[in-house]
Amino acid sequence: MHDYRSHTCAELNKSNVGETVRLSGWVHRVRDHGGLLFIDLRDHYGVTQVMADPDSPVFADIEKVRSEWCIRIDGNVKARDESLVNDKIPTGEIEVFIRDIEVLGKSEELPLMVFGEQEYPEETRLRYRYLDLRREKMQKNMLLRSNMIQSIRRRMWDKGFNEYQTPIITASSPEGARDFLVPSRLHPGKFYALPQAPQQFKQLMMVSGFDKYFQIAPCFRDEDPRADRSPTDFYQLDLEMSFVTQQDVFDTIQPVMQGVFEEFGKGRKVDSEWPQISYKDAAKWYGTDKPDLRNPIKMQDCSEHFRGSGFAIFANLLENEGTEIRAIPAPTGGSRKFCDRMNKFAQSEGLPGMGYIFWRDQGEGMEAAGPLAKNIGPERTEAIRQQLGLGVGDAAFFLGGKPKTFESVAGRARTVIGEELGLTDKDRFAFCWIVDFPIYEKDEETGKIDFEHNPFSMPQGGMDALLDDPLAVKGYQYDLACNGYELVSGAIRNHKPEIMFKAFEIAGYGKEEVEKRFGGMVNAFQYGAPPHGGCAAGIDRMVMLLADEANIREVIMFPMNQRAEDLMMAAPSEPMSEQLMELGLRVIPQDQ
Amino acid sequence: MHDYRSHTCAELNKSNVGETVRLSGWVHRVRDHGGLLFIDLRDHYGVTQVMADPDSPVFADIEKVRSEWCIRIDGNVKARDESLVNDKIPTGEIEVFIRDIEVLGKSEELPLMVFGEQEYPEETRLRYRYLDLRREKMQKNMLLRSNMIQSIRRRMWDKGFNEYQTPIITASSPEGARDFLVPSRLHPGKFYALPQAPQQFKQLMMVSGFDKYFQIAPCFRDEDPRADRSPTDFYQLDLEMSFVTQQDVFDTIQPVMQGVFEEFGKGRKVDSEWPQISYKDAAKWYGTDKPDLRNPIKMQDCSEHFRGSGFAIFANLLENEGTEIRAIPAPTGGSRKFCDRMNKFAQSEGLPGMGYIFWRDQGEGMEAAGPLAKNIGPERTEAIRQQLGLGVGDAAFFLGGKPKTFESVAGRARTVIGEELGLTDKDRFAFCWIVDFPIYEKDEETGKIDFEHNPFSMPQGGMDALLDDPLAVKGYQYDLACNGYELVSGAIRNHKPEIMFKAFEIAGYGKEEVEKRFGGMVNAFQYGAPPHGGCAAGIDRMVMLLADEANIREVIMFPMNQRAEDLMMAAPSEPMSEQLMELGLRVIPQDQ
Repeated sequence: MHDYRSHTCAELNKSNVGETVRLSGWVHRVRDHGGLLFIDLRDHYGVTQVMADPDSPVFADIEKVRSEWCIRIDGNVKARDESLVNDKIPTGEIEVFIRDIEVLGKSEELPLMVFGEQEYPEETRLRYRYLDLRREKMQKNMLLRSNMIQSIRRRMWDKGFNEYQTPIITASSPEGARDFLVPSRLHPGKFYALPQAPQQFKQLMMVSGFDKYFQIAPCFRDEDPRADRSPTDFYQLDLEMSFVTQQDVFDTIQPVMQGVFEEFGKGRKVDSEWPQISYKDAAKWYGTDKPDLRNPIKMQDCSEHFRGSGFAIFANLLENEGTEIRAIPAPTGGSRKFCDRMNKFAQSEGLPGMGYIFWRDQGEGMEAAGPLAKNIGPERTEAIRQQLGLGVGDAAFFLGGKPKTFESVAGRARTVIGEELGLTDKDRFAFCWIVDFPIYEKDEETGKIDFEHNPFSMPQGGMDALLDDPLAVKGYQYDLACNGYELVSGAIRNHKPEIMFKAFEIAGYGKEEVEKRFGGMVNAFQYGAPPHGGCAAGIDRMVMLLADEANIREVIMFPMNQRAEDLMMAAPSEPMSEQLMELGLRVIPQDQ
Repeated sequence: MHDYRSHTCAELNKSNVGETVRLSGWVHRVRDHGGLLFIDLRDHYGVTQVMADPDSPVFADIEKVRSEWCIRIDGNVKARDESLVNDKIPTGEIEVFIRDIEVLGKSEELPLMVFGEQEYPEETRLRYRYLDLRREKMQKNMLLRSNMIQSIRRRMWDKGFNEYQTPIITASSPEGARDFLVPSRLHPGKFYALPQAPQQFKQLMMVSGFDKYFQIAPCFRDEDPRADRSPTDFYQLDLEMSFVTQQDVFDTIQPVMQGVFEEFGKGRKVDSEWPQISYKDAAKWYGTDKPDLRNPIKMQDCSEHFRGSGFAIFANLLENEGTEIRAIPAPTGGSRKFCDRMNKFAQSEGLPGMGYIFWRDQGEGMEAAGPLAKNIGPERTEAIRQQLGLGVGDAAFFLGGKPKTFESVAGRARTVIGEELGLTDKDRFAFCWIVDFPIYEKDEETGKIDFEHNPFSMPQGGMDALLDDPLAVKGYQYDLACNGYELVSGAIRNHKPEIMFKAFEIAGYGKEEVEKRFGGMVNAFQYGAPPHGGCAAGIDRMVMLLADEANIREVIMFPMNQRAEDLMMAAPSEPMSEQLMELGLRVIPQDQ
């Protein structure tokens, strides 16, 4: 017989009754039924009930085992009494009577119980991650992650993509975040950087003729920690294609993402219609460039109804250029109580409040209630109601000013309203492409024009567009939003050196600086660069959505804590002075 | 029609004749046949001949294109004349008459030709890697690498392994090489390290109950560059299993490796018998722990034939303890010319020379020739011949002394002899497991006992063995050699804290130091650790063998040069002073 097991702890059933078997695993739980000892023996695959009575030759040894000891047992498979069969587990028909036992690994007193649902502080969980990971939920999350990535790889291969590894110790690749640096020993005083993304390398591969690339790529950004962000390394499904348009990229990635969400979504509905919404419309309708389309609420411009109306605040506001009154329709939200609560929400977000109207039937037909309705009068109120398609029992909220000042709060209000009114379908994954991002934005203070997003995107209209009003130029640049999260970001790249230099010039970067910062890529574009584009999807974010977790550390095997420390491995730590010497570095003492 | 292509450059054949098509790709070669222009248009998939004559509406534009321009053409598919059909490429039956052309990306004067076989200095190739990678051999090597890794993943999944990612920015994991350090911004003065291997993490996963793990894992070692080693990051197929013996690991990895070599070996023979050779025997028979079994030569101990013989040098040598005379049989090597050449080889390796005997037939029966034979006389010579199983036309070489002093030269001589005599079968992959590595070795100078290999292996015989003579203790530790290279290294791990502390104690490491250096893992072993083991296979090395390349840079997409620099991306480079400030570091000026 094998040294450790003839079967896993999920394999035995009625057909094995009478066999002598060997199992190894962890003591999940011990129950003492008056001299009869039952152990739930657990391994990666499942649980098997093993038991002994005082007749067992090793009863005394079995009495000693404790939770989470790793043991090997030999025994006979016995059918359980009909009344004791457990339908919930595959081994529920049998139990194993223990004939022999070997303790493979004892356990000290546990700082964290594996069995049961007890909650522990995150620091405890991370310090004893190896115990935390034994818990059922964590095993499931890690398996989900592994299986999801496997599925992505298979889907990408099936589409003719090849996975290529790009360098990890490399040059700085400015992507907007901070680089992690790696001092060079062979070149003291010089540093490598870890890639924020394989952006330049994947574009270089396209210039090299590789046509279709993907990688489950580790990315490194030295960012301040957040619940949904790893402070060190994270993973992207990174892909790039040559000779493609924006729609080609969409047609490539949609079946992959949709397929993965269908495969691992546990029956939740996965939208197959992925609308393309312009950046501008997304802001207008949803107050964000990552809208949650599970929420049916769509905001609307209601300025005309307030212009010159009796509601002086809005009427005056509208006298200023670039201002607008935005309505958030709230079907079924037609009660003063609800409206007041939402108004308070807006105040908690730092706004003076949200005006509202709600429609009720007091027995004498429909009536529009709320201070706003009174101020603007019945005609305008009715016009608003008709524009928004609302009726009795519904409400609408209004925010005014320059859109930039209220849009993000409006977006959050839309979310809260959708959730509180139960309008948001929780059992669904709703996707949309956000397109037509502007290439540039103007700093309101300085008047300086800078890149709004990513300097590598091809401007729609090419060179001609750049020679016109830069602020009107849109890029072939896109994000995919799902349930309010940005899942994918990408672009058709600017592969023409002359257009790239022009694009940078508009943002105030001279040719020399561009060559210094992006030399590798810009040089390559001089030698027959193909049109190309692609995108990157956040792997950790996808697992979070599928596992219904709000904290990224629940879907990473060995995550850092929020202070970017690994308590289990003691990282970061003081270097040895020889190490610093070799690297030609000195630590500057910190004043604390 | 699609913006860029209706077909790839490998798709069109006779069945497309008459169609209007659109192709995009690079100008591989232009030929001017007296007004008739032929372009080999190349993309990732293949080459299509496109052509134009002065009747073409865009002839003037076509005349302008140069090598490596990226272009899009529209045209009509025409059958080639029977006499002009090219059987070697899938598109060899047709050509495309160009009706329209668009230049997608022009090229400057090329620093490196893609077409043709011209050799360039490595620095040029790396600086213009994006051009170098367009060459057919590089495209093939990168595809081989990608396909091989894909195949490995599929094979591991089929065996029930799950791939899990381990941290890249983490703590030092001493594996014998130097760590790359990453300064922490949030904790100035402290450093992370990049993992030399995911060794500790994979063992922690076993403690966490994950049972079967693998990863195509990036590893980081700050080592001085070598032709077959990347100076920064490289990849391993890393795997670990719980509840296994050494043989289980062998039975798991052999079909994966053998399958991969069969799949990508281009018909070369792949051995299915993988002998297990002890570390000791490998040294004796092959003079190395990574023997090339394609070479049938097996060295033998011939000491007894020289003890007290007339060959004084050897006879005197054997008076000293621990000495030995080792024979390298050389079937078909029986000529003075060959023997002298091999003797010179030994001298070039720093030895005084190699004694030899060769057997010839001068018409009067077999005769043993060479100075050695004369000195030891016919009886001893004949006994040697019989022991080595040699005959007329064969030779044998002899080296003497303490094995450590001559074994590695003997190993190299065996290799040269095998190659020069054509005994080594080049079209074959021959594997063997090297087992029974000693856990400890004694420093001859200091007498100090230290780990020979890896401190994490389980000693054969467990605690009892350690309490006896440590130098006699072997580990459950193994390497896989293939054609003279080490491809895999692994062990059954020491998962018992008390045995681990004892093992370290023998090598002079106190409990405190072990806890400091390997705290994460050692702590984890206190909480029910399962028996486990695994191995890691060098991905880059495997591709090198399959692609028949001696330089690792031929199988990495964007490698560093031998000085650990990336000339294309300009890494490493001087940091910005703000970056150093944030990290709390100062660069010590170097005296040059």
